[in-house]
Amino acid sequence: MRPRSLLLTLPLCLGATLAAQQPVFSSHDEVESVLTEAGPVSVKQITDGLNHPWGIEFLPDGRMLVTEREGQLRILDRNGKLSRPIQGTPRVFHHGQGGLLDVALDPDYAQNGWIYLSFSEPGQGGASTALGRGKLQDGRLEDFEVIFSQEPKIDGPNHFGGRIVFDGEGNLFLTLGERFQFDPAQDLSNHLGALIRIHPDGSVPEDNPFVDDADARDEIWSYGHRNVESAALHPDTGDLWIAEMGPLGGDELNQPEKGHNYGWPVVSWGYHYNGSKIAEPPTHPEFTDAVKHYSPVISPSGMVYYTGQGFPEWQDSFFIGSLSGRQLVRVEVDGHEVAHEERIPLPDRIRDVEQGPDGYLYVITDKENGAIWRLEPLLPPQQG
Amino acid sequence: MRPRSLLLTLPLCLGATLAAQQPVFSSHDEVESVLTEAGPVSVKQITDGLNHPWGIEFLPDGRMLVTEREGQLRILDRNGKLSRPIQGTPRVFHHGQGGLLDVALDPDYAQNGWIYLSFSEPGQGGASTALGRGKLQDGRLEDFEVIFSQEPKIDGPNHFGGRIVFDGEGNLFLTLGERFQFDPAQDLSNHLGALIRIHPDGSVPEDNPFVDDADARDEIWSYGHRNVESAALHPDTGDLWIAEMGPLGGDELNQPEKGHNYGWPVVSWGYHYNGSKIAEPPTHPEFTDAVKHYSPVISPSGMVYYTGQGFPEWQDSFFIGSLSGRQLVRVEVDGHEVAHEERIPLPDRIRDVEQGPDGYLYVITDKENGAIWRLEPLLPPQQG
Repeated sequence: MRPRSLLLTLPLCLGATLAAQQPVFSSHDEVESVLTEAGPVSVKQITDGLNHPWGIEFLPDGRMLVTEREGQLRILDRNGKLSRPIQGTPRVFHHGQGGLLDVALDPDYAQNGWIYLSFSEPGQGGASTALGRGKLQDGRLEDFEVIFSQEPKIDGPNHFGGRIVFDGEGNLFLTLGERFQFDPAQDLSNHLGALIRIHPDGSVPEDNPFVDDADARDEIWSYGHRNVESAALHPDTGDLWIAEMGPLGGDELNQPEKGHNYGWPVVSWGYHYNGSKIAEPPTHPEFTDAVKHYSPVISPSGMVYYTGQGFPEWQDSFFIGSLSGRQLVRVEVDGHEVAHEERIPLPDRIRDVEQGPDGYLYVITDKENGAIWRLEPLLPPQQG
Repeated sequence: MRPRSLLLTLPLCLGATLAAQQPVFSSHDEVESVLTEAGPVSVKQITDGLNHPWGIEFLPDGRMLVTEREGQLRILDRNGKLSRPIQGTPRVFHHGQGGLLDVALDPDYAQNGWIYLSFSEPGQGGASTALGRGKLQDGRLEDFEVIFSQEPKIDGPNHFGGRIVFDGEGNLFLTLGERFQFDPAQDLSNHLGALIRIHPDGSVPEDNPFVDDADARDEIWSYGHRNVESAALHPDTGDLWIAEMGPLGGDELNQPEKGHNYGWPVVSWGYHYNGSKIAEPPTHPEFTDAVKHYSPVISPSGMVYYTGQGFPEWQDSFFIGSLSGRQLVRVEVDGHEVAHEERIPLPDRIRDVEQGPDGYLYVITDKENGAIWRLEPLLPPQQG
């Protein structure tokens, strides 16, 4: 086994810093170049032909799992070729924002082979966000089991959340939305507008904040969220960070703390879509205020904490995908505050962002002919 | 004649502030809403079906002139209907960035009827930017005459500049590009990379900076520019402001002063497209530095100084269209410095921006099926 292959078979742990090397996928068309705080960056297209891709995740061998919202899970091989849809994935409610959502590997994937999928699960009364897992065997997802289903199911196509983040301590977070129902985001007896923390088998950690509250759902970590499609762990502090979609204005960056209430829909830095203010003042003392709020909105989706060697100047930053802003938002945090922010404009709506095993950044674009792009330095680093 | 019609027949003088009223074009589809520093703003589509529109200008009766890059001049009527191409426009070099460019009315349009068009003029050796004028009579542009032709003509499709701005003192500015030729932008014996100041009949103002220099072109006001597609007059100071396209990074906001050299291609805040730096340091004392530079680029095109009643919070700001940034950049200046800046994201590349006689903002989108959008407050102002 050559050293490079050995490197690529290492599990991709959160916070692991792999040495910069040749890109996983080679020789692709340049989409554009952009001058950033990390110098000139080239955006290269790895593939297109994906129908509204939603989530990406690297396998230990450098191949990439990618979901399409209408329900397919595919694998992109090292030659940049997309597989046919993998069989064995769950049936999804594909309508509006709903469908097959995120994909993530178990931290112990090398040992247990679990692949997690979040999705809009159809059922009695409508649909809700669910989380399941299966194992890739002979090109099929086997033994797929649902480990969490948001309750109640709601008729409607909006606000499914759906990002999956492992916390490095044996738990996982699943972000949700309030299914465009507003007030229930304040009600702990349902999962609407809540952030979920469970074990990878779906059981509830005994230190969850509401396990002793008979009127509250045990899986809830924090609540009062609107729709959260961006989430990533800060590897040094172990804190979860999320970015959530506001209404007209008022997107938020939050660091969700155990049991805290983030205020939606009682307070918001945004406006109703009819142009009227939601709250004046936009936050109240009983709610945890956003670390930062964004008006105009960025429409955040996808988030990663970057630790790679490909862009030394960008190490130790969060990157947040932006749909309506067509950009990556780079955020450096210091404690619970934003220390610096940079915007990297891109030509399309960005749905997800991940760090590749090559130390570069990969994004997917949200459209009918969606693409996978790699951001890499325009000039290769000098050898020696 | 009703009062409203009377109002609309007033000539649209630079700096004139017309009272906010009903939009010129009514009842259109909302493209999106965006929360700005002027409150919630609705972006409404007036029409689409324009092939890469490049310049817009309102006629005194509230109709709009619009150019399409491939050569057509059309009129949008008050019902939002586009006319057939107006006959009598010049033949253009339509390739790459070249074609029919800006359109402007003479400040004395009500008296003399002159309509000015900038365009890529084919000729011996290639093409260059030219400026001409004609009069709209019976739906035709009559008596079209070329009053300025950039020299020399160059083979190639890039950097035509093309914005027309009257200075309120009997002169007009025409912005140019250096036709992607680099060094000639420093050579006063040609018009490449120069900003031109002439009388509306094409004659040279005797106070132009280089009229006494036998080796320099008399029409030049300033030089060392790369490609300038944004220009507007500050009505209070009478200063011309421009925004120009840098290479990879290094777009600039400038207030071009008489006879000054802006340094391209000797200095720049940008990089070459191959990723190498252009100049270190990025400016030298012998050149006038940019008021502000933009990396990543905004790709500025179109610019207006806003004085309308539709957005009181936005009065006395420049608005710059952004192609690659898909936004309007709002700039408040204080003397020769930027006092404040706001970005208003929009879903498409913005090629031009104008203030309507209704006090709202109009933009055009740069694509094959280009549109005209109006920005208006989401909530109408309260009556009484």
